[in-house]
Amino acid sequence: MAGAVGLKECRKIRGSQIRTLLDAKDFFLFDCDGVIWHGETAIAGAPSVVNALIRRGKTVFFVTNNCTRPRENYLSKFCRLGFTDVMQEQIFSSSYCSALYLRDVAKVQGKVFVLGCEGMRKELREADVPFVDEVDEPDATIYDCALLPDVKAVLVGHDDKLTFLKLAKASCYLRDQDCLFLATDNDPWHPLSDGRILPGSGCLTAALEVATGRKATVIGKPSRFMFECISSQFRGVDPAQCLMVGDRLETDMLFGSNCGLDTMLTLTGVSQMEDAQEYRKSEHSTQHSFVPDYVVDTIADFLPAFEGLD
Amino acid sequence: MAGAVGLKECRKIRGSQIRTLLDAKDFFLFDCDGVIWHGETAIAGAPSVVNALIRRGKTVFFVTNNCTRPRENYLSKFCRLGFTDVMQEQIFSSSYCSALYLRDVAKVQGKVFVLGCEGMRKELREADVPFVDEVDEPDATIYDCALLPDVKAVLVGHDDKLTFLKLAKASCYLRDQDCLFLATDNDPWHPLSDGRILPGSGCLTAALEVATGRKATVIGKPSRFMFECISSQFRGVDPAQCLMVGDRLETDMLFGSNCGLDTMLTLTGVSQMEDAQEYRKSEHSTQHSFVPDYVVDTIADFLPAFEGLD
Repeated sequence: MAGAVGLKECRKIRGSQIRTLLDAKDFFLFDCDGVIWHGETAIAGAPSVVNALIRRGKTVFFVTNNCTRPRENYLSKFCRLGFTDVMQEQIFSSSYCSALYLRDVAKVQGKVFVLGCEGMRKELREADVPFVDEVDEPDATIYDCALLPDVKAVLVGHDDKLTFLKLAKASCYLRDQDCLFLATDNDPWHPLSDGRILPGSGCLTAALEVATGRKATVIGKPSRFMFECISSQFRGVDPAQCLMVGDRLETDMLFGSNCGLDTMLTLTGVSQMEDAQEYRKSEHSTQHSFVPDYVVDTIADFLPAFEGLD
Repeated sequence: MAGAVGLKECRKIRGSQIRTLLDAKDFFLFDCDGVIWHGETAIAGAPSVVNALIRRGKTVFFVTNNCTRPRENYLSKFCRLGFTDVMQEQIFSSSYCSALYLRDVAKVQGKVFVLGCEGMRKELREADVPFVDEVDEPDATIYDCALLPDVKAVLVGHDDKLTFLKLAKASCYLRDQDCLFLATDNDPWHPLSDGRILPGSGCLTAALEVATGRKATVIGKPSRFMFECISSQFRGVDPAQCLMVGDRLETDMLFGSNCGLDTMLTLTGVSQMEDAQEYRKSEHSTQHSFVPDYVVDTIADFLPAFEGLD
């Protein structure tokens, strides 16, 4: 267990080393964007790797901070991109887990005010969590709009329909310290094409944290909650038998460390080898939790490990 | 100079103590909301105090982080609420000072992208600072919208027309490290009636800081820049001869401390005596800069000091 014995190795592995690792683990947790696909394109070889793991009896989970899609929507994406052996119960998105948290952990007695997208509302609806489903009049302001008395939680995620009024309403609801403050994830930004970026849920959470002087409870990685969701739905998920594979040191690798999992960085996404080595050399020991145990160029590097085994 | 000799006294003063202080100072800097007015209502006695100071030859300045009004608009508000002796050149708002900064300090060679309100654009226009004056198509997204090549600064303030697309565009512009990142102020929130709050510029700044991993240059209090604007426009403003009067410890008192001014908290606004005493007792010496030298219930407490002097 590299996680328990100090500095992780950040070791580039290949060939037989990968085969040994795959043999040793029963559970594989994959982040999605930057790991198995880029937007609407599967990373070359990734579908074969995932399907092969599943067919070999490994249990595969997908843990994504992307809160924009409901799970059934993810399922069709998996299928469309060639991940044909994946089933809905293997997918743990920050929206789905947020809905579970609101229903089963917080047991919110009232409505949820959502700064988020349709995918988040869909997951709340599926989980029977009541939420505010109103559209503001175009000329309404925080000075004169209605505020509902039964809002008991604010859930923040990706909201491409964000307005100032929504931000202001959320701030007002959160003045009540009994109103739960939940964020699907804390991702700061996401890469788009042409060097553009998409502000992440972490931006809106930060805005509300400043307005209210409160800290949000974060559901997505690096928080442990998604792993708790997995453990409660699948028996026998032993952290020592898990490998967490991701592309972002500050979320995926830290999530793995927080949950006591071995971690693997794949270089097809946001973080690069130099970033990992920088954290490894850091004098701040908290940053050591961002360091992976293993590094691969791409998860397609798993493929040779399956050869000759069929 | 209380500011220079360690812990400030946070002393409630009245009567002859106030008269001695008013005699000793030549320059009075007032915050506006919570100090001389609440929204559209002058604080009782405040117009008499301000007019009396001016008539007695004191120089009075108004330093406000409220970026929503252009100065000429402030002037009519001063007049409407009875502050009839105030002139436009005494008013230093964070919008006005931001325009000066962009023109005279940063000397921006390009356009400014504004997350802000009409008052901010008006001040930029007055100062001949070019800015992006476009309205987004209702269905434009960050995936397909145009980004202008000549944006060289992003200015963030109060934006009640904020949309997700504006936030995303600002984030993209700021990916260029040569693009200046400026905030009118860092106020976290503002009190409204009925216990409601208005998210402040500090919220939007925090959102962009998270999206870009950069820190904004802040123009408003507690930054020293507004005092530099005053000093450059009025000769002989000696910090030792100044009293800064405000209602918010984290902005107004810290601004005074940062500029080497004596400070006075008035209890008609956000911060209360207990807050000040809490900071005074703090083990974190940085918080001692939030502590005022003097405290009054209201600036109407100045009135007796003028009696018998006419």
